[in-house]
Parts: sequence; C-alpha cells; structure tokens
Amino acid sequence: MALTGVLRPGHVVLRVMDLDKAVAHYTDALGLIEVARDDKGRVFFKAWDEADHHSVVLRQADEAGMDYMGWKVDSAATLERLAGDVKNSGLVTDTSWIAAGEHPHTGKRFRFTIPTGHVMELYAQKDATGCSTGYLNPEPWPDGLKGMAPSRFDHCLLYGDDLDGTVKLFTEVLGFGLAEEVVAGPEKFRIAAFLSCSNKVHDVAFIRQPMKNKFHHASFLLDNWYEVLKAADIISKRKISIDLGPTRHGITRGETIYFFDPSGNRNEVFAGGYIYYPDKPTVTWTDDQLGPAIFYHDRKLNEAFLSVVT
Amino acid sequence: MALTGVLRPGHVVLRVMDLDKAVAHYTDALGLIEVARDDKGRVFFKAWDEADHHSVVLRQADEAGMDYMGWKVDSAATLERLAGDVKNSGLVTDTSWIAAGEHPHTGKRFRFTIPTGHVMELYAQKDATGCSTGYLNPEPWPDGLKGMAPSRFDHCLLYGDDLDGTVKLFTEVLGFGLAEEVVAGPEKFRIAAFLSCSNKVHDVAFIRQPMKNKFHHASFLLDNWYEVLKAADIISKRKISIDLGPTRHGITRGETIYFFDPSGNRNEVFAGGYIYYPDKPTVTWTDDQLGPAIFYHDRKLNEAFLSVVT
Amino acid sequence: MALTGVLRPGHVVLRVMDLDKAVAHYTDALGLIEVARDDKGRVFFKAWDEADHHSVVLRQADEAGMDYMGWKVDSAATLERLAGDVKNSGLVTDTSWIAAGEHPHTGKRFRFTIPTGHVMELYAQKDATGCSTGYLNPEPWPDGLKGMAPSRFDHCLLYGDDLDGTVKLFTEVLGFGLAEEVVAGPEKFRIAAFLSCSNKVHDVAFIRQPMKNKFHHASFLLDNWYEVLKAADIISKRKISIDLGPTRHGITRGETIYFFDPSGNRNEVFAGGYIYYPDKPTVTWTDDQLGPAIFYHDRKLNEAFLSVVT
Amino acid sequence: MALTGVLRPGHVVLRVMDLDKAVAHYTDALGLIEVARDDKGRVFFKAWDEADHHSVVLRQADEAGMDYMGWKVDSAATLERLAGDVKNSGLVTDTSWIAAGEHPHTGKRFRFTIPTGHVMELYAQKDATGCSTGYLNPEPWPDGLKGMAPSRFDHCLLYGDDLDGTVKLFTEVLGFGLAEEVVAGPEKFRIAAFLSCSNKVHDVAFIRQPMKNKFHHASFLLDNWYEVLKAADIISKRKISIDLGPTRHGITRGETIYFFDPSGNRNEVFAGGYIYYPDKPTVTWTDDQLGPAIFYHDRKLNEAFLSVVT
Repeated sequence: MALTGVLRPGHVVLRVMDLDKAVAHYTDALGLIEVARDDKGRVFFKAWDEADHHSVVLRQADEAGMDYMGWKVDSAATLERLAGDVKNSGLVTDTSWIAAGEHPHTGKRFRFTIPTGHVMELYAQKDATGCSTGYLNPEPWPDGLKGMAPSRFDHCLLYGDDLDGTVKLFTEVLGFGLAEEVVAGPEKFRIAAFLSCSNKVHDVAFIRQPMKNKFHHASFLLDNWYEVLKAADIISKRKISIDLGPTRHGITRGETIYFFDPSGNRNEVFAGGYIYYPDKPTVTWTDDQLGPAIFYHDRKLNEAFLSVVT
Repeated sequence: MALTGVLRPGHVVLRVMDLDKAVAHYTDALGLIEVARDDKGRVFFKAWDEADHHSVVLRQADEAGMDYMGWKVDSAATLERLAGDVKNSGLVTDTSWIAAGEHPHTGKRFRFTIPTGHVMELYAQKDATGCSTGYLNPEPWPDGLKGMAPSRFDHCLLYGDDLDGTVKLFTEVLGFGLAEEVVAGPEKFRIAAFLSCSNKVHDVAFIRQPMKNKFHHASFLLDNWYEVLKAADIISKRKISIDLGPTRHGITRGETIYFFDPSGNRNEVFAGGYIYYPDKPTVTWTDDQLGPAIFYHDRKLNEAFLSVVT
Repeated sequence: MALTGVLRPGHVVLRVMDLDKAVAHYTDALGLIEVARDDKGRVFFKAWDEADHHSVVLRQADEAGMDYMGWKVDSAATLERLAGDVKNSGLVTDTSWIAAGEHPHTGKRFRFTIPTGHVMELYAQKDATGCSTGYLNPEPWPDGLKGMAPSRFDHCLLYGDDLDGTVKLFTEVLGFGLAEEVVAGPEKFRIAAFLSCSNKVHDVAFIRQPMKNKFHHASFLLDNWYEVLKAADIISKRKISIDLGPTRHGITRGETIYFFDPSGNRNEVFAGGYIYYPDKPTVTWTDDQLGPAIFYHDRKLNEAFLSVVT
Repeated sequence: MALTGVLRPGHVVLRVMDLDKAVAHYTDALGLIEVARDDKGRVFFKAWDEADHHSVVLRQADEAGMDYMGWKVDSAATLERLAGDVKNSGLVTDTSWIAAGEHPHTGKRFRFTIPTGHVMELYAQKDATGCSTGYLNPEPWPDGLKGMAPSRFDHCLLYGDDLDGTVKLFTEVLGFGLAEEVVAGPEKFRIAAFLSCSNKVHDVAFIRQPMKNKFHHASFLLDNWYEVLKAADIISKRKISIDLGPTRHGITRGETIYFFDPSGNRNEVFAGGYIYYPDKPTVTWTDDQLGPAIFYHDRKLNEAFLSVVT
C-alpha cells in the first residue's frame, strides 16, 4: 500500500461570533460551498474539488478559535488500531468516541487532546458526495465559482506549549514526517514543526508558544500565484482585514496571503510548495533566519503574525 | 504510517542513439543536472529539487526507448516483502536481483517484467546526495538553472498489450490507486489507466496497444503555466521537435507540452493537476471524449501522439 | 502633443447569421457587455475597461464578415483634416459622411473604402459613458465579469489584394507605423503588414491575398497567459469551435488563442507583446520563417488559419 | 501622425556612491546590459528590448539621487519647437543646450529645470543600436538574461514642491495627459499627478512635497506577475534592501515591488497596468483612499515609501 494510515486533515471546526457574517465570508469571499446545516446550528462547507461531504464547519460561539481538527484514516481497521495506539501513547488526554452521524454523513470519530492542548479526531468514513466537476469526463474547473475559490482545505497552523510532545505523537504514533522545522540558539531548540502525512509539504504545523490550544490559521489551496493576486484583490475589494501578503514563505516555498474572518480567525490561501516524501531530509531553519523563513521577501516578521491567535 | 510501500518512480533508464547530443538535450534544453558517468558509459542525471543521487539515466544504444523504470520503496523490509509478493503474484516474468552498486549510490534492486512487457525495478536505498538548495535555510530555487529546469522527474506513460494484468499488478500487489481511466464502448473496456502511489495524479500510466514494452514519454514537473510557456519557447529557440502543446490535459487537468529528444524519445514537461487520495473516486473518461481527455483544448488527438512511441 | 491624429480602433461591425446565438457568444463566452440595441436590430457592446460607449457591433445578415472598422481621432479638427487627406490621397473609393447619431452616442463619421477593399471610418466623438470600475478610487477590476472578460477590443487582421496601397494609406496619410512585416522571396515582396497608431504592437494588420475585403479576426486584450488558459478552457467547456492555441506568435510575441463565433467569424484573445514606438526599427519576417512567425511553437501554419476567412 | 511630440523617457542619470557596487546591482540583480563607459567615468546601460543606445546612466558622486531625465522627441523639428515652447513658457529655469555627443551616440539635448526642481532634457536623436533579439525573424526573448531582466526603462516618480507648475508644463507645453491624480481635502488639492505621453499609464509621476528635486524611484518593465515574484525572490537571495511588495498599486493597477540600489536610490520593477489614451477620463483618488491608491492590498502606506527619497 502506498498512502496509508492517516490520509489528510478532513475537517476543521471553527468558532465564530456572528454566524451570518461568517457564512458570508466563507462562501462569498473565500469561496467555499455550503453543504449542510444541522440542528445545533452548525454550518458545513466544502471546497469545490473535495470529494467528501464537508471539510470546514462553523459554530456560533462567544469567542473565536478552533474547536478541533479531524483526520481521515484509510480504513475502519486503521481507525481502531490508531485509536488504540494514541490512547496508549501516554501523550494524549480526554479521549472519547464521538458517535457516527454527529457530523452529517460521517462515521464515528475518536477524539483526543494533544500535548499542545488542541483537540484532534480520527475517523475512517465520510460520504464521498463528490466534487463539483464530477468523475465522468469532468471539466477542469466548475462554473459558478465565487471569491477566491480554493480547491481544497489544506492544513492548519497551531500554537501551543508542549511542542515536543505533539511532534512525538504525530511522528511516532501517527506516522507523520517532519518536513521542516525551526530551531533556536546553539542548542537548536525546536520552536516550530511542519508535519506531513502525505506528499504535501505540511498537513499541520505547530509553533511553540506558552499558551495551550491556540489557533493561528486554517489554510486553503489555490492553483497559482495569479490566484494569490486575485485573492489579494478580493481582500481589498471587500475590505477584509489583511494580515500579510502576497508574499512567499521561505518555509515550504509557498506563495501566500493571510487575512482574517469577521471573528478574527486567520485564514490563508496559498499556492506552490514542493512534493514532500518521507525519506526527504528535513529542512531546518535557524532562528536567526526566522524572518525569511516565514516571509521570504520582507525578511522580517510582522507583529500581528506572531501575536494574533484565536 | 502515512506514505508507505512504493514511494515514487525513482529512476528511468532511456536508450539514446547519440549520447553527446542526448546529454546536451537533457542538460541544456530540459535542464537536468549531470551527476555521474559510469564505466559502461551510462550518464546519470537528477532534477534540481531531487534529494536522491539520480533519477534519469541515458544509455547509448542502436534504438531509442526505455530500458526500465525503478521504484523506491520505504524500507529494506518492504523491498523484501514486495519482491516476494510480486514474484508470487503470477503476473510477472524474468525476475532477478541486481546487485547493490550497479547503479552508483544505489542499493540492490529487484527487477521484473510486467504484463505489458515493461521492465520495472524496486529498490529501497539510494544515497540522498541532496537537492540544489540544500536543507539548511534554503533559498526557494537555486541559481544557475538552465533550460526548462523542472524540479523533479515525475512519471512515465507506457504503451503495452496486457493492460489488465499490469493494472492488477500495480493496484493489487503494489498498492497503487487508479486515479483516472479511459474506457471504450458500451462494455466500458479499459484502454488507459493512470496509477498513483502517492498524492500525485499519476506516478505511471499505461495505454492499451498491441505491442509489448513501448515507451510513450517521460515527464518532468514544472511549477506553473508560465514555465510551460518558457519551455515552449525554448523548444522553438532550439529547434527541438515538438509533439503538441502548450495545452491542458482533460485527464489530470495538467498544463503540458510534449517534445522529442534527439533520438525520438518523447519528453513532457507539465504543471498543475490536483491532489490525489486513495479514497478519491476514480475519474472515468469514455472513448467518445478521448479528444478532450487527452488534449482538452483541441478536443482531438494528433496522429503522432497516438502512433509515435519508442 | 504626444498621442495625436488617429488614436485607436474604436469600433468594428460584424455580420452574424443568428443574432441570438451571436449575442450569447459575445456576452457569455467572450464576456463583452451589451450596452444598446437600435431600431435596425444592431446590438452594441463594450469591453469592461473601455470608456467610450461601444466598440463591437453585431448585425444580422445572410453571411458572416466585417462591415467596417471605425477609428477614433483626437479632435473634430483632425477629423476634417484627415477626411480631406484621405479623400485627396487617390487611394480610397466610396467616401461618404455618416450622420452623427447613426451609431448611438457617436458623432459624424467619415467613411471610405481602402485599397484592400475594406470599409473604414474616422470619427472624433463618442460619448465616454465610462468603464466598469469608474474613475474615482477605482477597484482594479469589476465584479460580475463573465467568460474570458477581455479589457478591450484591440485590433483586426484583414485579408485583401492591394496590400501596398493600403499600407501606403495607413502609413503616409493616417500616420501609422509599420511595426512588423512579412516579406517573400529574394525580392522581399511584402505579404503582411502589422500597423500601429500607438504604443500597441498592432492596431490593424493586413495579409496579401487575392480577394478583396476579407475578415480574418477581431482581437481582444487579456491581461496575461493564465487568462489565455482560462479562455482556452472556456472554449472547450462551451464547445466553441477552436482554430489554434494556446500558443505564442513570433510576430508581436503575443500569447494567443483563436476561435470562431457561431457564424464563423474568427475571434482572438491575447496577452503580452511589447511597447511599440514609431522610431523602433520594423521587425521583418522572411517567408521561410512564416511558420514560427505566426505560430511560434508549432512552427507551421494550420490550414484553417490561412484559408478560413469571412 | 499618431504618436508625436515627446515619445518617451529616453534616459535617466542616477548618482551612485560606489560605482562598482552599483554596476553589479544594475547588471547582475536588476539585469540591465552595460553598453558603454565614457571618459568621465559614467556607465551607460540599456534594457534588453530597447532599440536606442542607452537608457540608464550611472555617475559616481558623494550623494545619491537623480541628475536628470531625458525625453526623446519625434524629430529635430519638434525638438526646436518644443525647446522654444518650453523656454517661453515662463515655467522653467536654467535652460541650456548640451552638445551632441556629450552622451555617446546621442544628438544635442535641450536641458531645463522644471518647477519641482528636477532637471529634464529633450533630444531628438540617439542611435538605434538595436535590442537583444534583433529585428529579423527575432526570438521572443534573448538567451543569457540575468537577474530580473526588465525589457525597458519605464518611468520615474519624483517628489517636489511646485506640483502645479510642473503639471502645467507637462500637460500644456509638452502635451502629456493626466492619467491619474491624488487630491486632498474638500478642495481637492492635487498632491500627486501621473502623466503620460503615450499609451503607458505613466511616463513620469510627481508627488507634492516641500523640498525641490527629490527622486523617489526609477521603474523598469516586467512581463507579468510571475516575474514580479522572481524579482522578489532575487531581492531576498541577494540581500537587497526591499521597500515593499510584491503588491498591486491601486493607482495604475500595476503589479509591483520596490527595492533600493546600494546607494539608496529606489528601484521599481512592475508589470500590468492598462492602456491609456489622451481622451480617457482622469482617474482621481481622494486622500482618504491614499492607502489603497498606493498599496492596494495593505491599504496603508509604509513610512519608508513616503519619506525615503534621494
């Protein structure tokens, strides 16, 4: 078998403070497609090229942030095995099983809290309700796209305290590779880790920081640098709060722009990067090069990028 | 574990009729980097973003074509296991072990002939001599690139007779997914298969055709549609024989151009496509849509694309 | 004064055989904006970045082709002067004045037939009803664009017999520069002329050919090579008859694609090119290089491009 | 005649404090081509697509800044006429004639100081030594380009006090159009003017500011947004001081990046914009929209952009 175990980040659940404004942002500006609402008031979205039923979920709350990320695994057997491995790893807390159907079109999920304080889930089943172009003689892109129109939900960047524990969990228990890292000082103390369960440069990334369970951004995939420009234009046309960009990351080489949803949750749309393999040497950035590592062109960090999290 | 088993096409060995002209083509026009020559006269190349020692090998011969493709697997244990599985599959012939070092910087390889007549190899070890930008605070691209400058060797498209046997071998024994296929007639007889062992849309593809062991093209990865234009310009500036492009494939959505090396082996450089997952529904093309499936804009095949193979 | 005399091709009037299909093509596929219809049944369009009231006019007729092109000049005085110069040049026939208002929002036009048999007009006034983004703190592009969404009508390419007479008229009487030309044989017999009244590489072009008054294509301006790809995709999605592309012209360096409206009139959308100046040396192409001159990548002409005109 | 009078900015002469470092910057990083040095130690450059002998001149000096800009006019007769008009305008000071040959391959120049304190020249003759691709069956781009490799010197942005006088001179005497402007307050006091003598969005621009004769930047033309990214990457790879970008201007719609030469003179490379005509309505920006007018995505000015001039 080639791609096995954990396949991808399958959903992210975000808290928003004004659901209507948030829905308008994620549909009209970002360009996701609303696919369902449930009796808890949650709104479910997908990007146009995703097969599974949903990938982004919004929930009305008093403060912004991320409730949890869900990871799709390759089979029910893998779900059982990994749930056991995670539980027995000594690295997680608050494990539980969420019943099938709690997310629409989705099987049971194994939930746990990782050392950085973030809640993660594993699940094996979500109905493949299909992408917008279908699978029979498909066009390369669908008509009627709106806004930035990313093809996929791609990854999250999260801030938390016990980076070492979380990296250990993802690499040793869940089988991720460490694609890139940032290390500080002569002891090469790791302060950031970019983790991949695939050929993508990152499926999730973590930055070391004193507080548990902070959310930096959810990222969505564009095709190319021109789409990053179009996204930047949309940000200005719609008076969306921008963080930084268009620019390139040194880390991952991605071409990127950051902005905020109406509740202050940071979004990224990006293109580019490279094909990662588990036998590729890890790319290491030293903290004296943190500027170009993060924002390759400015070669310095903006204050908001480091400090604003939800 | 996430990406396991067969990781990627690790090398392709091509026969060329004038080695000097071929080396000039693959370095100056295509833009690969020559990394070694051996006492058999073989010349070894890599693309600038590849970690392993080599990916393309040229051999002087009386006629053009492909000697074999080699596939890197994730470990020595996997190599032993898959070699056994392949041998016992009843699907291959002419199995043998090639000693470590027969390719420079490369461990032992298990060689076999697949139902379509092509020779394939599995291997677990090749020295990671490193990509051109290194792994410590790397720049996004190296100075001194020449020609089209693809970042990677990506895949081959091969023509052969027993398509069903080969697809069975790759999917049932080697763990590949069938990303896309072309079917003919009301019986939906499969005439083409695009196979992935990764998140790439294809790592190898096969077209059904009466003769065994024919080579259609080796393909190399560019970053974007502007690089396809630059490649097209280079083809004209250097009076390289063009096949077709720039255009888009319906299959894979890739943005592409085809041309020939001085011995008549077809090369492709391409960008784009999408992220494949093993749980993604297979895209099916029907033969009445074969035109747009192959060349999405022209919506008809050119004669050379179908008939010229080496 | 800097840009004086003839400013630009201000309108082109095309004959179509099914007006409804044509309107659908020019609005939904090409992406022009319908701005008016008149009591003769003519439909008037503009591109989104044009200030003047209209640039493209469609007229129902029994056969396709071009009725006439209109050229905006810088002032009423220039109109009178150039009308006199043209009339007295001995190069034109069938001169007449068309009354103000015959085109909506347009002043009087001086009409004449040039040596290649095409009907041309000069006019000094057309109401600046404004582009889609306006002129006060404008956004870089408007919302609600459809189809290929060119920013401007750019030029026409016309086929006719007396190329020398037409070039003489445009260069010696109307003040155009000869940006590029194609010459045949050792006598360097001119067979094509690309003429500019501006910094654009061409505002009109002519190919020598036995019949008078033939229309090859009307061309519209895109921003970049990615928009050419999007246009190519739209051509396939909508099953529009394609001529050739995406490719680059050797002549003008433009990035281009050609297709046909439902009546068989050829359209081009293109990007790129260079900044022309009247003191720039004329670029000369010899007929042995006609292939790359026209289609730089294929380096050969397709039959339709040479023979299909309306 | 179509493009008449003042044709274009034909040269800019910059003062640099370390000639060797400056030459390295303008050749290796920016990618101009050195064409001559003279006995005064001046170094002359051109961009690869320029026909005339030179467009950029560097002179060793104790402080950075611009000595003068030179404007090519269409003929010797125009030169005499405009020299007289300028002299008699009451708007300029320090008029003089510079002898032919003082710049290599260049005819006599009429020099004068404009109300904002900048020195300008008009000239009618500079040898067309040719662009890098030639004019007979040319390739679309030459081999051997280095760095950002702009095709042309495009314009300068200058800071000075008497903006009204300078605009009056350029529009009423030299025939320029006012493409875009920024106005402040309810009285719509003009604080910036973007002036065109062509179809380019600007050939020179002025910002009102208390001191005379300040230089903000010299700008060079790239083909597209990907070349802006490549330029941004080169800026980082070479540790060149960056000002801001990649981004889009609201004014002109251009896609842009700013950086500094080793002496602190600001350079811009940009792509995009639109086709300007003298009958196009002037685009007006109000000072409450100055942020997006200058940097469309950030929607606020950086301090350096406003205050750092040479």
